[in-house]
Amino acid sequence: MKLVIDAFGGDNAPSAVIEGVVKALGSWDDFNIIITGKEDAILDELKKYGTVDMGRIVIIDAPEVISCDEQPTIAVKRKKNSSLVAAMDVMARGEADCLISAGSTGAVLTGATLIVRRIPGVKRPALAPVMPTVGKPVLLLDCGANADCKPEYLEQFAIMGSAYMEGVMGISSPAVGLINNGEEENKGSELTKAAHALLKETDVNFKGNCEAREIFSGDYDVLVTDGFTGNVVLKEVEGFASALFGILKRELTSSFVTKIGAGLSKPAFKRVKKLMDYTEYGGAPLLGINGGIIKAHGSSDAKAFVNAIRQARQYVAGNLTEKIAQRINVVENTKTND
Amino acid sequence: MKLVIDAFGGDNAPSAVIEGVVKALGSWDDFNIIITGKEDAILDELKKYGTVDMGRIVIIDAPEVISCDEQPTIAVKRKKNSSLVAAMDVMARGEADCLISAGSTGAVLTGATLIVRRIPGVKRPALAPVMPTVGKPVLLLDCGANADCKPEYLEQFAIMGSAYMEGVMGISSPAVGLINNGEEENKGSELTKAAHALLKETDVNFKGNCEAREIFSGDYDVLVTDGFTGNVVLKEVEGFASALFGILKRELTSSFVTKIGAGLSKPAFKRVKKLMDYTEYGGAPLLGINGGIIKAHGSSDAKAFVNAIRQARQYVAGNLTEKIAQRINVVENTKTND
Repeated sequence: MKLVIDAFGGDNAPSAVIEGVVKALGSWDDFNIIITGKEDAILDELKKYGTVDMGRIVIIDAPEVISCDEQPTIAVKRKKNSSLVAAMDVMARGEADCLISAGSTGAVLTGATLIVRRIPGVKRPALAPVMPTVGKPVLLLDCGANADCKPEYLEQFAIMGSAYMEGVMGISSPAVGLINNGEEENKGSELTKAAHALLKETDVNFKGNCEAREIFSGDYDVLVTDGFTGNVVLKEVEGFASALFGILKRELTSSFVTKIGAGLSKPAFKRVKKLMDYTEYGGAPLLGINGGIIKAHGSSDAKAFVNAIRQARQYVAGNLTEKIAQRINVVENTKTND
Repeated sequence: MKLVIDAFGGDNAPSAVIEGVVKALGSWDDFNIIITGKEDAILDELKKYGTVDMGRIVIIDAPEVISCDEQPTIAVKRKKNSSLVAAMDVMARGEADCLISAGSTGAVLTGATLIVRRIPGVKRPALAPVMPTVGKPVLLLDCGANADCKPEYLEQFAIMGSAYMEGVMGISSPAVGLINNGEEENKGSELTKAAHALLKETDVNFKGNCEAREIFSGDYDVLVTDGFTGNVVLKEVEGFASALFGILKRELTSSFVTKIGAGLSKPAFKRVKKLMDYTEYGGAPLLGINGGIIKAHGSSDAKAFVNAIRQARQYVAGNLTEKIAQRINVVENTKTND
């Protein structure tokens, strides 16, 4: 199994990336890894860890860095020698099965689409982070790859998301919901009403419309939506949680008694924070690309990179790219023959 | 000042409605109120409170009730003798300045549009609840009246929302944001990119795109979006907060020590809950209708109805309908003359 990682993506690059790689190499012996980026800096970081099995590492020197402020299409086209484009090139040449990057989301999407390319038959790739809920985690897609979607895209998102939850998370017959402004079948926007009709005809385990109130209910394994709404859903909860914990902290430290109370309650708060911790789930796969692409969170630390590598291994071990290709093929061929 | 209230809307009707009316009559002497619904039941409820100034109350007997399960358009057309339609008729005849109902959102929207009708020049009315944030509360519109929107609707939402926050909440030059999947001007869906361009040309205090992460930052007074996204934004946070408090409660009661901690922290939790309490803000105005329409939450208690009546008084005192009509007129006339 061959993975490739962009050592210069994310706020904590390259140190957190390399620390994650070294830890992952120590934890699992079923993969080799290609690291792209400034070779000197990568070697300096690796030296920090004493004995590292260099036989499992290949470094590709790619000194340019794409920042989050750059216009993705231009950056990907111009910075051929960037850590991200070099990693995408590795994928395009078929020299690795899965890529990990915590770099600019736009650049990862653009690079994957232009350089690695889509699985034939896939209309649009979808960014699919896993979100914690009250019960089991839920895969939300699309979360920003496609601001404007057609009903057929949402249908394919449901198929790709189901394949992922089955193949990587080991869930049989994942429950799929369509995010909507009402539970009833006749409710929704033009997009969701048409998507609902298509989803009823697929072989995914479609449970119907999911009102936003139910996103965190734990009733769904896969939630399908357009990239605009998915982005709002994901970022709103991030913003709300941080606002709420900010207010809670302020109130809990406002008096002597509540301070003592907060101190005694600390273990409970820690467990809640751990439950809500996105780093536990690694990164967001970009589904529909001809090879695994894991977009790690920009603020990923070493632990998040270890989890992203675990996730990449599971993606490869589960033959996800092939499985998605097969399922999309079956659906699209049926349509052509209709 | 004349208000009209639907006594049979909401989960706690009619008792919570009448309790709210009686309390509001005791608190403010600047309004009279028309109550629509089953007359006997309304009188029975009123009797509970001893001395009530019946000179300020008119009851219109309207024994039918529209439930939340009914298809709104059909229900509004058929149930002419329902508490909701009777209240809408009062508005249409110009016998009251503002209506309050905690009934089915769909029926309130349909009734307002078909019976009370829009302000001339208003393309679509918008449901505009106030949400608590870390700082000042924010008006979010549209929250469900229009699942599919055109850029011009969003432009008008910004104008109507600004008028409301100025006239009712007393905020001068309210800061307006456009909910988007990125801060940058060139980011967004087709809808938000076009709406952004229009909003820059209006006379509202447009602060640009607001990523969903910033909704609760307290940086905005008015947030503009299509009704589908607004509905998702509103309901997601409702669902998330209840899921989070559920997990917190479970964890806080999981051991003896954290239980004591939770007990001591209780005053802080209570203050946080109060901050997050939607009932503090009354209901959601439906802006753009030829008269005030306040949609109270379905689960409103007496306190929420008192606050909705306060809000209705402020709407009328602020001449909101006239102000919205003026501002929309200026904008639409300028366009015609361009």
